[in-house]
Amino acid sequence: MDIITIIEKKKNRIELDKQEIRFVIKGYLEGAIPDYQISAFLMAIWFNGMNYKEIDAMTTEMAHSGEIINLNSIPDIKVDKHSTGGVGDKTTIALIPMVAAAGVPVPKISGRALGYTGGTIDKLESIDGFQTNLSVETFINNVRKIKASVISASVDLAPADKKIYALRDVTGTTDSIPLIASSIMSKKIAGGADSLVLNVTVGDGAFIKTLSEGISLAKIMVDIGRSNNKKTYAIISSMEQPLGNAVGNSLEVLEAINLLNNNGPADLKELCLFLGAYMLMAGGVVSKHIDGIKILEEILSNGLAFKKFLEIVKAQHGNVEQISNPLLLPRSKYNSNVISRKEGIIKRIDAEMIGKTALLLGAGRKTKEDNIDHSVGIVLKKKTGDRVRINEPLATIYFNEENRYNLIENSIHKAFHFTNSTLQKKPLILKVIY
Amino acid sequence: MDIITIIEKKKNRIELDKQEIRFVIKGYLEGAIPDYQISAFLMAIWFNGMNYKEIDAMTTEMAHSGEIINLNSIPDIKVDKHSTGGVGDKTTIALIPMVAAAGVPVPKISGRALGYTGGTIDKLESIDGFQTNLSVETFINNVRKIKASVISASVDLAPADKKIYALRDVTGTTDSIPLIASSIMSKKIAGGADSLVLNVTVGDGAFIKTLSEGISLAKIMVDIGRSNNKKTYAIISSMEQPLGNAVGNSLEVLEAINLLNNNGPADLKELCLFLGAYMLMAGGVVSKHIDGIKILEEILSNGLAFKKFLEIVKAQHGNVEQISNPLLLPRSKYNSNVISRKEGIIKRIDAEMIGKTALLLGAGRKTKEDNIDHSVGIVLKKKTGDRVRINEPLATIYFNEENRYNLIENSIHKAFHFTNSTLQKKPLILKVIY
Repeated sequence: MDIITIIEKKKNRIELDKQEIRFVIKGYLEGAIPDYQISAFLMAIWFNGMNYKEIDAMTTEMAHSGEIINLNSIPDIKVDKHSTGGVGDKTTIALIPMVAAAGVPVPKISGRALGYTGGTIDKLESIDGFQTNLSVETFINNVRKIKASVISASVDLAPADKKIYALRDVTGTTDSIPLIASSIMSKKIAGGADSLVLNVTVGDGAFIKTLSEGISLAKIMVDIGRSNNKKTYAIISSMEQPLGNAVGNSLEVLEAINLLNNNGPADLKELCLFLGAYMLMAGGVVSKHIDGIKILEEILSNGLAFKKFLEIVKAQHGNVEQISNPLLLPRSKYNSNVISRKEGIIKRIDAEMIGKTALLLGAGRKTKEDNIDHSVGIVLKKKTGDRVRINEPLATIYFNEENRYNLIENSIHKAFHFTNSTLQKKPLILKVIY
Repeated sequence: MDIITIIEKKKNRIELDKQEIRFVIKGYLEGAIPDYQISAFLMAIWFNGMNYKEIDAMTTEMAHSGEIINLNSIPDIKVDKHSTGGVGDKTTIALIPMVAAAGVPVPKISGRALGYTGGTIDKLESIDGFQTNLSVETFINNVRKIKASVISASVDLAPADKKIYALRDVTGTTDSIPLIASSIMSKKIAGGADSLVLNVTVGDGAFIKTLSEGISLAKIMVDIGRSNNKKTYAIISSMEQPLGNAVGNSLEVLEAINLLNNNGPADLKELCLFLGAYMLMAGGVVSKHIDGIKILEEILSNGLAFKKFLEIVKAQHGNVEQISNPLLLPRSKYNSNVISRKEGIIKRIDAEMIGKTALLLGAGRKTKEDNIDHSVGIVLKKKTGDRVRINEPLATIYFNEENRYNLIENSIHKAFHFTNSTLQKKPLILKVIY
């Protein structure tokens, strides 16, 4: 078996078997196959795709390239959640305490992906002292004791995926459905949870641009979950405008805290309830989705979700005072409103442009070495469908460097598109696959 | 400008401009862009191709990545020749003295490509003492004095092409028309000749499998030649069976010597006369192709071509006795005939399989580090269209290792395909583009 023949096969649309995929993944991880051959292989996959059998083999091989976390010592059905991400997506931060408060254990392993803002781990690190590099033992103990814990993906978890992901990131091969599916699912399998709820985001502000691609990705992941004996739900939601109002690390933590106090933006609440109810179903706590929604609404209104978040933050050595009094979270030196120059109804808010503006402010990472500024970001004052008058604020910018302000302000103006006719509300939740 | 954006553009079929192509080629040669990004870029080109403007820009950039040989001190129109190669292709060895003897200066720069047998340089090194690593000065002086010289492509000639070619070779991206065209033409432009005759081989035994691909490659190269003010002819010929009878380094030199003594196989002679006559047209010695053929036929029969070969070998420190008495060329320890087990007419001789058998014998290189055995190879006793009786020899194998003989013999049997009906002769020369 040799890598050039395998590249040629993929190039010429000949199905690869398990042994060939194992040869590639193992060879790459062990250093026997160099980066430049894998990047050519990945680009051939970008063009020719992979069939289900190939994706399944690649997922299994990457999942088993490192440690598989054994969560058997935790009673009940453990449920993991994943989102393909988007601008302003802080659902994970709110969902973990909501679902744990309802009695479902949530062992959450998160990443620090490159992007417009940090990943869940980075966002949570806005809280002083919050530790995410816990040992697996502590992680398991926390889930046993308080039903939830969040750790950063360690080096040993699906290391082949980690190496391949880093290469995809610099070779234009991130936006490939088979590669996205196998990357996500290998980490979920290595994470060891019993059931999975996957949020596939589609639209301008997401990796996946169209609903049909989203469905295709969701179906593959649900099938892989099932073939690994994990009950898996995939919820496809729209990412045409930022989710909620806040974009930026501490600003998003603040918004999640508001939701846990039953005071969050409507769209964020809708998505969290919808996803959370599937997590309760996946955890066997309810059998009907509507029952899950009811339980979670109660948990938000009676303060149990907020209380659970305090427990989690405390268990991970975070400063709980910042949760009780979010004014103590990192705050930027300056903030300023972007004032509308137009009158009308907001037709569209370009999520990608808002994301890029957040990155420009310093909220995200362009390279692994970049530092994140937890305090900066954007809070939208208007969302799609809202009526705006001239001089009304469209958004507030939180910033630390004055010299870039004009550039930032202009980007925000460009992200807002207006119309004069009233809009029909577009649904946030597009489809559920299971 | 950044390489990831350029990869994405090529991936999404967006035309690259000159500056972007320069950025890639220069960045790769200087080490600013790593192998793994270039291999992803090359694979994207394999799938999406390049338009003429892109190929032209890539050719120019690679040609000017190193030295451009200045041949102005040599009078007359200098003509270079190139073949895309094939099994048993020894045309260059015969053509150089034929054309030089007719008065056209031939400054020939050749390679040592990986393949079933060695390249022209390796074949010529079957002659004891034959030196190909001459200085450019000596090379030019030789062409001035005796109208011809052959040197191996030095490091300084189109170094960007050299680096990219090495990467293509190990990433499944060799068989791409835009990449082949730019690679060949960058070396030809750097070689400094005034006119070019390109032999594009198509068929089972060649890189290019179909006539339409051959035409497409030929047209691109002729256009690039023209835009660099070089009169360029491309002759497309068939490579469905090995060219001539001999496959293997010293065996091919011997066959070329036989042709120079006007005693070569019919197909080899036909192709050499056809290509050679275009070289005379390119060199301005004749204006009609048929006149070129006549001159070359005379030069073969009056011994001038053979005499010119002796001069070239002498000027490059080769042992001329081996040319006068070819029995002195390297000979394998053993030789044995492969005897036909069938009766009939030969329908097809699988050139690729004959080539692979030669490689198995040790005639070629799989990696740059492999040593070539100049003495081994195969001589066909029958060609397509020939009638064969049982027990008649199909081919003679020249070998040094007894233990592999059965394997080799079986491969030869497999390469010969029989029929009972008489065949219509297929043309060797398929098309001329200029």
